[in-house]
Amino acid sequence: MPTLTVTRRLHFNAAHRVHNATLSDAENRELFGKCNNPNWHGHNYLLEVSVTGPIDPKTGYVLDLAKLRDLVERELVSHLDHKNLNLDVPFMSGTNPTTENLVVACWKVLEPHIEPARLRRLRLWETDNNYVDYEGE
Amino acid sequence: MPTLTVTRRLHFNAAHRVHNATLSDAENRELFGKCNNPNWHGHNYLLEVSVTGPIDPKTGYVLDLAKLRDLVERELVSHLDHKNLNLDVPFMSGTNPTTENLVVACWKVLEPHIEPARLRRLRLWETDNNYVDYEGE
Amino acid sequence: MPTLTVTRRLHFNAAHRVHNATLSDAENRELFGKCNNPNWHGHNYLLEVSVTGPIDPKTGYVLDLAKLRDLVERELVSHLDHKNLNLDVPFMSGTNPTTENLVVACWKVLEPHIEPARLRRLRLWETDNNYVDYEGE
Amino acid sequence: MPTLTVTRRLHFNAAHRVHNATLSDAENRELFGKCNNPNWHGHNYLLEVSVTGPIDPKTGYVLDLAKLRDLVERELVSHLDHKNLNLDVPFMSGTNPTTENLVVACWKVLEPHIEPARLRRLRLWETDNNYVDYEGE
Amino acid sequence: MPTLTVTRRLHFNAAHRVHNATLSDAENRELFGKCNNPNWHGHNYLLEVSVTGPIDPKTGYVLDLAKLRDLVERELVSHLDHKNLNLDVPFMSGTNPTTENLVVACWKVLEPHIEPARLRRLRLWETDNNYVDYEGE
Amino acid sequence: MPTLTVTRRLHFNAAHRVHNATLSDAENRELFGKCNNPNWHGHNYLLEVSVTGPIDPKTGYVLDLAKLRDLVERELVSHLDHKNLNLDVPFMSGTNPTTENLVVACWKVLEPHIEPARLRRLRLWETDNNYVDYEGE
Repeated sequence: MPTLTVTRRLHFNAAHRVHNATLSDAENRELFGKCNNPNWHGHNYLLEVSVTGPIDPKTGYVLDLAKLRDLVERELVSHLDHKNLNLDVPFMSGTNPTTENLVVACWKVLEPHIEPARLRRLRLWETDNNYVDYEGE
Repeated sequence: MPTLTVTRRLHFNAAHRVHNATLSDAENRELFGKCNNPNWHGHNYLLEVSVTGPIDPKTGYVLDLAKLRDLVERELVSHLDHKNLNLDVPFMSGTNPTTENLVVACWKVLEPHIEPARLRRLRLWETDNNYVDYEGE
Repeated sequence: MPTLTVTRRLHFNAAHRVHNATLSDAENRELFGKCNNPNWHGHNYLLEVSVTGPIDPKTGYVLDLAKLRDLVERELVSHLDHKNLNLDVPFMSGTNPTTENLVVACWKVLEPHIEPARLRRLRLWETDNNYVDYEGE
Repeated sequence: MPTLTVTRRLHFNAAHRVHNATLSDAENRELFGKCNNPNWHGHNYLLEVSVTGPIDPKTGYVLDLAKLRDLVERELVSHLDHKNLNLDVPFMSGTNPTTENLVVACWKVLEPHIEPARLRRLRLWETDNNYVDYEGE
Repeated sequence: MPTLTVTRRLHFNAAHRVHNATLSDAENRELFGKCNNPNWHGHNYLLEVSVTGPIDPKTGYVLDLAKLRDLVERELVSHLDHKNLNLDVPFMSGTNPTTENLVVACWKVLEPHIEPARLRRLRLWETDNNYVDYEGE
Repeated sequence: MPTLTVTRRLHFNAAHRVHNATLSDAENRELFGKCNNPNWHGHNYLLEVSVTGPIDPKTGYVLDLAKLRDLVERELVSHLDHKNLNLDVPFMSGTNPTTENLVVACWKVLEPHIEPARLRRLRLWETDNNYVDYEGE
């Protein structure tokens, strides 16, 4: 059967502060500017989850996107939506919540649950003008 | 000269918590659910500023949108972008930062600066799926 | 309290055929062209529900948009999504399902449920390039 | 029959220069800055044509949007698309091609052709961040 | 000459029903839920056609996108737009019209017509929230 | 550290004319049609700049997107925005300004400035319906 990549997009809204706890406050301000605001700021994040595999001849799907959506909502969105990325999210604990670090953490959470197809790429939009792609190690 | 309405769109990213300080924590949780998260959440806000007036025959503009953009950035966006709407914004002090209360506060700040044209409408998008319109008293 | 208009956007996917049952097949083909395909075609519809009212001083909301969303999903979207507008939708029975007739039917279903605020406008997008606005009688 | 407003969106790409021929070059540079570049610049314009009227009980349409599209393409888009607004467009001759002046000129061309429904509003987007609305005299 | 990938986006609106004719009705309902509605539903599909090749030094194009658009409209869109994917489309006959199966069928139709450049990828959006990519065998 | 690709989107508005100076006017008209209008036309271009590299453990960034934005604005956007691509842009001098040739020229200008990460892809949208990708030699 042909191999394709299917993508589902999901949204979550969160607060964060870009901050490296191993640096001084002055260094953080210098490095991160307004993104280091100690009172937080936030974004409407958009996550694109792409999964690759052959078409299942029974369903005509690579995988059922409704099931993929439910999986991503349970494993990721429910932990991220209307949360503070620095304070509320167990799998981000101790991590500077840049888009890069967030998308790598999401990969680690999600990847073991995708089967028999495999996770191909996560794309995370922080605003309409910037996004990050991660394809695993 | 014909009268038209011109609109400029601007973006800001902010954290907030929907919270009524005159109610108990339990009442706030009951009323606002996940929007009441004490650790905040956030949004990419999109503000549309609409101004009505006749075309100036010298410029062919109702007003110079670059000047309108600079005005809105100085009076509103610089106070809102990468801020906490509950803690950091003087003109929101003591106000529950719902989209409705935020757009009314923005109107009060901006309206005196729009002349000779007049402010016609502010539209504030909190996400791609909801927005609020205010046209003044 | 200031009066504002708040809008929630919702999606549904449906099949339809533009067809006037009081006309002959030939007249229908002549009037409606490819939109009259007897085997149906379909759209991703986008509905914008706009409600006007004063801000409730307790909540800071005109109304709770999560409750509005639940109401519209129960009264409209659950009857329209993944349905055939000519065959499956009780409140469209006997009606030629143009975007115009559909938005008027949606108004009649939804309007009695909006209170104390009042329904101000329904905007229904059939494609990215056309939409219809209805504001009641 | 209920009265509604239907809207069709159309695109055209054009070059222009914001320039008032009754002023000196220095005054034009001062007033219009980079928009006065004597070598032109350009935009992907998006025009939204809104027409109001009752639903025709025979068709279920306010008017046939395919016919409205053909009308706007013949009367406006064919004269504007891949053109220079200062040099190539008869109905803009002698006019400073700001978005405001352009939308008023489009109204004058289009309005006599809309019947029995009537032209309600033209919205012209110059970029994703600014647009102009004109509703006639 | 440098090698690039150029992409043209095209739209079509169609009805379909996700259904595997080799399974029972009960199995189809179980597998596909509301997507199996026997009365059909539909979508506004968006197809992105990506073609790779060197820049032609005469034209400065990989290929003329107006010609690519005409080709895709003739070979694909004219057979899909305002059609029923289960009933009306010869190249989908006997195929369960999931987005995956549809994009593979489109590839088989289109690929022989692309030359001297070669078809690189088809991306098919079924809604704003999901799409499928196919890059051939 | 994991390797990711980060993307920043930037806008510019420009006039151009597709024209091969080594061909006759008649050949140019035949090859390029309305895109060859001697009085120019124009577009709102959207440029996506994608850069690949490991996460810097100090910042949590592949690179600071605000610095990337400033770099692209200085090296590219300031030379392209509100300009004529045939007449005003030194790095396009003597080049037929198709989207393909423009994106290759942008790569040559930008690539030496990206370090220690490396430029991975430039995507240039000419309209909402077509874009070109270049990934270097």
